[in-house]
This record gives sequence, structure tokens and C-alpha cells, in this order.
Amino acid sequence: MAASSIDYARLYSEGLPDPTPRFTPFPPYYFIGGNNDPEQIPIEGLIAAADTVLRREGSKLAIYNLGLGPQGYPGLRQFVADKSKRHRGIDAPIDDITITSGSGQGIDMISRLLVNPGDTVLVEEFCYQGAMNRFRKLGAKLEGMALDADGIVIDALAAQLASLKAKGVTPKFIYTIPTIQNPTGSILPLDRRHALIKLAREYNVAIFEDECYADLIWQGIDAPPALYALDPGCVIHLGSFSKSLAPALRLGYVIAEWEIMKRLLPLKGDSGTGALDQMVVAEYFSKHFDDHLPHLNTVLHDKLQTMIEAVEREFGSAAECWVPKGGIFLWIKLPQNVDVRTLIKPAADAGIVFNAGPDWAVSADNSSSHLRLCFAMPSKDVIRKGVAALAKVCYEQTGIPEQSGNVRRAG
Amino acid sequence: MAASSIDYARLYSEGLPDPTPRFTPFPPYYFIGGNNDPEQIPIEGLIAAADTVLRREGSKLAIYNLGLGPQGYPGLRQFVADKSKRHRGIDAPIDDITITSGSGQGIDMISRLLVNPGDTVLVEEFCYQGAMNRFRKLGAKLEGMALDADGIVIDALAAQLASLKAKGVTPKFIYTIPTIQNPTGSILPLDRRHALIKLAREYNVAIFEDECYADLIWQGIDAPPALYALDPGCVIHLGSFSKSLAPALRLGYVIAEWEIMKRLLPLKGDSGTGALDQMVVAEYFSKHFDDHLPHLNTVLHDKLQTMIEAVEREFGSAAECWVPKGGIFLWIKLPQNVDVRTLIKPAADAGIVFNAGPDWAVSADNSSSHLRLCFAMPSKDVIRKGVAALAKVCYEQTGIPEQSGNVRRAG
Repeated sequence: MAASSIDYARLYSEGLPDPTPRFTPFPPYYFIGGNNDPEQIPIEGLIAAADTVLRREGSKLAIYNLGLGPQGYPGLRQFVADKSKRHRGIDAPIDDITITSGSGQGIDMISRLLVNPGDTVLVEEFCYQGAMNRFRKLGAKLEGMALDADGIVIDALAAQLASLKAKGVTPKFIYTIPTIQNPTGSILPLDRRHALIKLAREYNVAIFEDECYADLIWQGIDAPPALYALDPGCVIHLGSFSKSLAPALRLGYVIAEWEIMKRLLPLKGDSGTGALDQMVVAEYFSKHFDDHLPHLNTVLHDKLQTMIEAVEREFGSAAECWVPKGGIFLWIKLPQNVDVRTLIKPAADAGIVFNAGPDWAVSADNSSSHLRLCFAMPSKDVIRKGVAALAKVCYEQTGIPEQSGNVRRAG
Repeated sequence: MAASSIDYARLYSEGLPDPTPRFTPFPPYYFIGGNNDPEQIPIEGLIAAADTVLRREGSKLAIYNLGLGPQGYPGLRQFVADKSKRHRGIDAPIDDITITSGSGQGIDMISRLLVNPGDTVLVEEFCYQGAMNRFRKLGAKLEGMALDADGIVIDALAAQLASLKAKGVTPKFIYTIPTIQNPTGSILPLDRRHALIKLAREYNVAIFEDECYADLIWQGIDAPPALYALDPGCVIHLGSFSKSLAPALRLGYVIAEWEIMKRLLPLKGDSGTGALDQMVVAEYFSKHFDDHLPHLNTVLHDKLQTMIEAVEREFGSAAECWVPKGGIFLWIKLPQNVDVRTLIKPAADAGIVFNAGPDWAVSADNSSSHLRLCFAMPSKDVIRKGVAALAKVCYEQTGIPEQSGNVRRAG
């Protein structure tokens, strides 16, 4: 490595994040990250879509945003409009839809629209880490909303909003993942959706609805319409193609009424989202969404069953699963006296990575015995072996679980 | 439009940018923006590349960053390494190369690495607006470096650095576009490159080298090696595929030594750059870069000639062109008493948009009679008609030029 010929340390800005380590390949039991099943990428379909759309509109690549404006490729926005109408009850013109460079960019834009340092934001007590990190980075103070097996507990939220109001605090927004909650996998019932909107209107709080997993629902389970479908006047809606297709394609979308959208758009700031990603996905999904998703969901549900069986076999009664209604992750509670943070290092040494509960929760107080395991990417064999390996690490560190598979340990 | 059911105005954060207006199609004479020639998009080549790369590696799309880390698709980084070695003299391992979502993201990352509010940044007196805007947004104070037909005037810069030092000011970095300067189109000679690096080392100032246009150089013109090739220890290098291929593909790249790169990477923050864009361009350019670029440059040079002829015909001696050595834009000086800002509105009414000098300069003092016209996207016919229409507007507003084409106006 060449020695630097100037002293960069004197030039760096203040408060830089920690350096990124050099990339190392994934360990064998990689149970984190919103990855998908590599075998379910529709390669032939994407090749055919690329051929069709490039032949038809490829010359537009010469122009920023294809010459069609900052909200994204109209074909993809039209697909989002159609899909959201059919599956989520949303009736939005494409002017109210903007394609984002992943849903993370949507979270950035929406939180920058609303958050000043010191503002209060309500999030589900167990919550997507990436969203919480972004809110906190802007100086937001997070308050957790109680969850049960069906999502936000409305009575508790009503009391919480009243209590905040009594203290003079008006939260800026409620961040919720009502349909396949991350990490619990619940679906908020219709009556709670109406009640949530009623509270938002009563307290003048916006609802930031993240539906990144709403396309991944097990067969036979119905989800109520999106919150946005029930009242677009107080909801900003976020979606993604990372889960329904592929996360290496950086494609998400925001749906908001134009009065809001016109304030969000200047916060995009990237001169457009990658055009090939947009064009190919629009072309492919316009024809194949309704074939691809049921098949993908069958595969994912099968992997979930494998993981649940492995957890039951390896952890027995020591593990309590929040059985998800869709998605790609399983939220597990171990006995209260297990602090999963103590398992991170020994698990890593054994080639296992998982999400520790406190990283996926507002507070460590009620999450230190929880963990999140993602099941979409690993094979069923890896799931079985990895869960067994994790149980072994857990036993070695904590004495729990006493029994694993056919092995009864010293009790 | 549905009435909002909450009062969003009470929720917006402070200091939001102005709302984005609804998109309207381009006017007939659109001479702004780094667009390319739509006829030069290699559609068949991109289709073949998509087929090949998706068949070979498509299943990796299921994983964030293709499972290969945050620096981007290794095939594209390898192409950047090879191209930069062959054409720019740069010898960099792919660990020192990161693909960005457009060069704009690279500018964001580099400026956030170095700029605290109040810091001084040196930029060329005529300079890319997008970079200046980003530096200013972080609170940087911009100081212009004098330019001549060959780029930065080294003696003037030496005096400027000494004067700043005498005032206790250490600039954080020198932002320069040494190869096809934007907007003047100059190429910095080798001796000035060495002198610039010497000054950077002497004053402990980093050099931020933007080479977004360095692939677009007219046949027969040689450019000296990149500044990064001469001293990677004080230079951060930026490049782009927007100009060499297509700006709707959001692909740029940063080259920096690992000690710097590891501090830059956490500032990327987008969970990766669109994978299809990266994979298809890597596959296409690995085979066809050395065919595509000479052809593209011939076409662009021809369009430049058309524009220069049109400017000479329509503006006569009233316009002085900085004839560029490559690129996609022409920087023009009108007589001192023409303030081009007064032409913006009447030109827009006539269907013409152009970059007013003060938007492409540190100060309006020495740029108010300048304008930048981009020539890659419009056809030669549009270039001729648009320049004639602009001359007409200019005459109507200012009495200049007195003669346009075969029309002699009242003098």
C-alpha cells in the first residue's frame, strides 16, 4: 500500500462513521439480511424482458431519467399502480407514485420530509433496524408501540398518544409495517387499521406505512387493504421489489398524494434510479407477477416450515416462535435469562450470524432474549444444520436448550 | 385530489427544498443536461450482454450486492481497473474501486468525507454546478481557481494557497476536472498536473479529480495521465458511465487508496447500486469499449462542429467559443454587456433552455455573459435551428448579435 502523500486525518470531517472492513464472503449459516432464494430468480423471464424493453425503448437510456421525469420509468409506475389496486386496494394515479433506489431511499426521503432533531416518532416495539437507524440519525426520539400477535395494540396506542399529548408532545409520524410486520410477521386486522387511522386523524400524526413484505403472504391468508387504501390523506405508503423479486435490483416505491409527493421529490437527490433495473422489472412483472409470486411464496413457506421444525427439534420448549403469515424471517423468543447478545461472538465463531433482538427493537429491555432468523436465502439443508449449530452454541453458553434433536445434555 | 385528512404543514421538517413541479416534456431546443445521443445507444450489444450475464450470474440477484460486498459488481470494477490502466495510467486493484449510483453519489460521498460547515474548498472558476451545489449544501465556502485555455493557472493557484495560508485558512480539497474541464473543455497539460500535485502536497490539500468526461476526447488529441496515476496518495478519483454510455444507467465510480476508501464506503448508504445496470455494462464494455468510444466520439465531434458553425453563423463575432477537446458541451462568451440571465425567460418562451454562466461559475462577476450549450442529445438540425432561435432571442433582448445568418438587423 502506497503511503499517503498528505495527512488525510487533518482533512476528514467530524463525526464520520466507523470505517468499513474489507469484504469477506458470507459464513456458512447466514441468517440475516433481506435476501431471497437464488433458485427463484426468473432468469429466462428477465432475459426475455430485457430483450423486449431494450428493443422498444433502449434509445431513451441516452437521457437522464429516460427523458420522462424524476419519478421513474412510467411502465414500472403503471405496474405499481395496477398491482397496488388489485392486491392492496389502492387507487393511485402514476403521478402519485415514485420509484426509489430501494425502499431505503424511500425511508430516507420520508423521514427527512418530517423529522427535525428532537421530534418524537412512534415505531412498533419490535421494528426494522434500518428504519430505526435512519430515524435516529436525523435526531428522532423513538417511542415503541406495543404489539401482539395481530400487530399494534390499539388501546395501548390510544393511551400512549393521550399521554404524549398531555406532555405536550406531538409525534411526527407512526411508522408501521401492518402487513407482514418486521420482525413478527403479523397482519393488522381491518378493524385495527380503521382505528389506527382514526387515531392518526385525531392527533394529527402522519402514518408511514411500510409494506415491503406485503407481496409475500402465504396461500390461504388474506390481508386487509393497505392503510393508504383506507385513507390516502394521512398515509405515506412504501413498497419494494427486493422481496418480491430481488434485492440486488435497487427498486422500491413511494405512494403519496401529489401535495406530499411534490415535497418528497426534491429529497430524492440521485438523478434517477437505475433505468435497466426499472425497465426490465416493469416488463417482466407486467406479464408474470401473478405467476411468480404464488410460486415464490410456496417455496418460502416451505423453507419457513423447515426452519420452524428445526427450531422445535433443536430448541424444544426453550424457543417460542412468532409464526409469520408471510415474509422471509422468523422471530423467536428464548427464555428470559438468555441474553442473545452473549451468543453473537461464539455463534460467529461457529459460522452463524443472526439478528439479535435488541437490534430489532426500540428497547433491549423486552428484546434481549429474542432473535430474528432469515430463511429465504439458505437451502433447507443449511437451515437445518445452522439451527442445530446455533442450538449447540446457545447450550454451550447458557445451558439452554437442555435437549437438542436426539441429544439430551447434562441437565 | 383528495383533501388531506391531517394538517401536513404542521409536520414538515424545517428547511425543506422547494417542491418539484409536475414533469413536463422537454422543450424543442433542450441544450442542458449531460444527456447523450439516443442513436448511439448500442441496443443489440446491451441485449446480448444482458443475455450472457444473466444466464451466467442472474441467480446472484437474490442477494444484496450480489453477495459480493458493498463496492459493486467485481466484473465492473475489473473493467474500470483495466480501462483506467490503459487509458488513464492508473494502476489500482479492484479493492480501491467502488461503483457508485452515478458520479453524483461519488461527489456526495467525497464531500461528506472532507467537508465541515465553514470549510474552504477550491474549485475551478467555471465549474460543474452539481458539484458546487453539493459542496455548498454541506456549508463549504467556495474559492475559484483561475482558468485559461489549458485549465488551472498554476502560478495563480500557488499565490492563492499562500494567501489563504497567510489568513490561516487550509482548504480541504481542490476540486478539479482536469481532462475535458466542465464547462470549458480543456485538458490540463502534464507539467501543470505535476505542479498541481506538488502544491497539494506542500499545503496538505487533497485533490478531488473528477474525470467524468475523460472517455470523450476527440481523435488525435492525447490526454496526460490522470492526476491519480501521478500520485494516488493525495488524489481521490471519480469517473462515470453516463457520458461514455448512458446517463439513465446510474453508474459512476470512485478510485481511492484503501485507507481512504474504507472511510468513504460507510457514506454510500444505499445498500448497493442497481445490479442489472452494473452487470450489463460490465459485460458490454468488457468486450466493446474500444469500439464504442471512438465511434461515439466521432459522432459527438461532428455535432460539436455543427454547433460551432451555427454559433459562428448566427452570432458572428459576438460569440467567443472555448472550443472543447472532447465532451458534450460548448462554453460561449457573449459581449460583456449581455447578461445571459435576462435571456432565460424569453428563451424558454421560444422553447430554448441553456445553462446561464453564473450557474456554472463560482461568481457571477466574470460569468454573466457566458453560457453553456450541450450538443450530444439534439440532432444536428435541432442544433442549427436552436442556435438560430437563441440568437434571435438575444438580439430581441439586447440588440446583439446585429447580424445573424444572412439577416442583417438594424444596427
